[in-house]
Amino acid sequence: MTTSTRETEITADPDLPLVRITREFDAPPEKVFRAHADPELVVQWLGPHATQTRIDRFDCRTGGSYRYVSILEGVEYGFFGCFHEVRPGELIVQTFTYEDEPDGVALERMVFEDLGDGRTRLTSTSLVDSLEGRDAMMASGMDVGIREGYERLDELLAH
Amino acid sequence: MTTSTRETEITADPDLPLVRITREFDAPPEKVFRAHADPELVVQWLGPHATQTRIDRFDCRTGGSYRYVSILEGVEYGFFGCFHEVRPGELIVQTFTYEDEPDGVALERMVFEDLGDGRTRLTSTSLVDSLEGRDAMMASGMDVGIREGYERLDELLAH
Repeated sequence: MTTSTRETEITADPDLPLVRITREFDAPPEKVFRAHADPELVVQWLGPHATQTRIDRFDCRTGGSYRYVSILEGVEYGFFGCFHEVRPGELIVQTFTYEDEPDGVALERMVFEDLGDGRTRLTSTSLVDSLEGRDAMMASGMDVGIREGYERLDELLAH
Repeated sequence: MTTSTRETEITADPDLPLVRITREFDAPPEKVFRAHADPELVVQWLGPHATQTRIDRFDCRTGGSYRYVSILEGVEYGFFGCFHEVRPGELIVQTFTYEDEPDGVALERMVFEDLGDGRTRLTSTSLVDSLEGRDAMMASGMDVGIREGYERLDELLAH
């Protein structure tokens, strides 16, 4: 057990079309990274509590790509992208598109920072090509999915 | 022959960390697209006049990836990225890193627009994560490489 708070901070950059998400986990960087890189683990925590995830492809290495479907109350939502660079235990840079908005693309960067004592700070940034896109991201309700997903990830990391 | 100008416009967005490049070509979209997608054609025009290009991998399809080396006066410069989405004859969305600046990543979008009469307008945008990065891109001398590369592409398309 730990006394650390597990608060997810989600902030829009004031000047850039960028959203920044910060969260700490009670597990070392290698373990938090693996939960993001291994599709058998990803399906166990990604998305809100009520979501099921089906992975079509998920090749988390530099130059790989992914596609998955989130299933919520019987409705399927598709997402795809490519992995620009993957440094195990340290960094994932990937692209991201929600298929119902096929011309929207985000460039995402996840940095896994070792806090010592078996703890990790994960900082994710999501860069889009307009300030309206940034504001739409903040207003989309994605924060619920992210917060609940990280609660599920806490559970997975505790085992 | 044609009377069209072949001017390359390169502009920094005033508000976004984004550079926009526009150029017209005297060839239809399918042919201009193919010159960007087929590695045997890409090596014939990419970069300034004095450059040679060696391709390590170049799999221009949705979820593919690339790495190539530009050789200028005996010095090798490496570049890599992944292809987020490729719509033949229409669109390429890819990431881009210059390996001497390994933490810098650009999200690039190339739109091939049919102008009729066998002509194409190519609009490329390059999105980075800071306004300083945008300004550094504008100041990097990359405009010479782009303008000269497009002159070489004109030659290739004329055959």
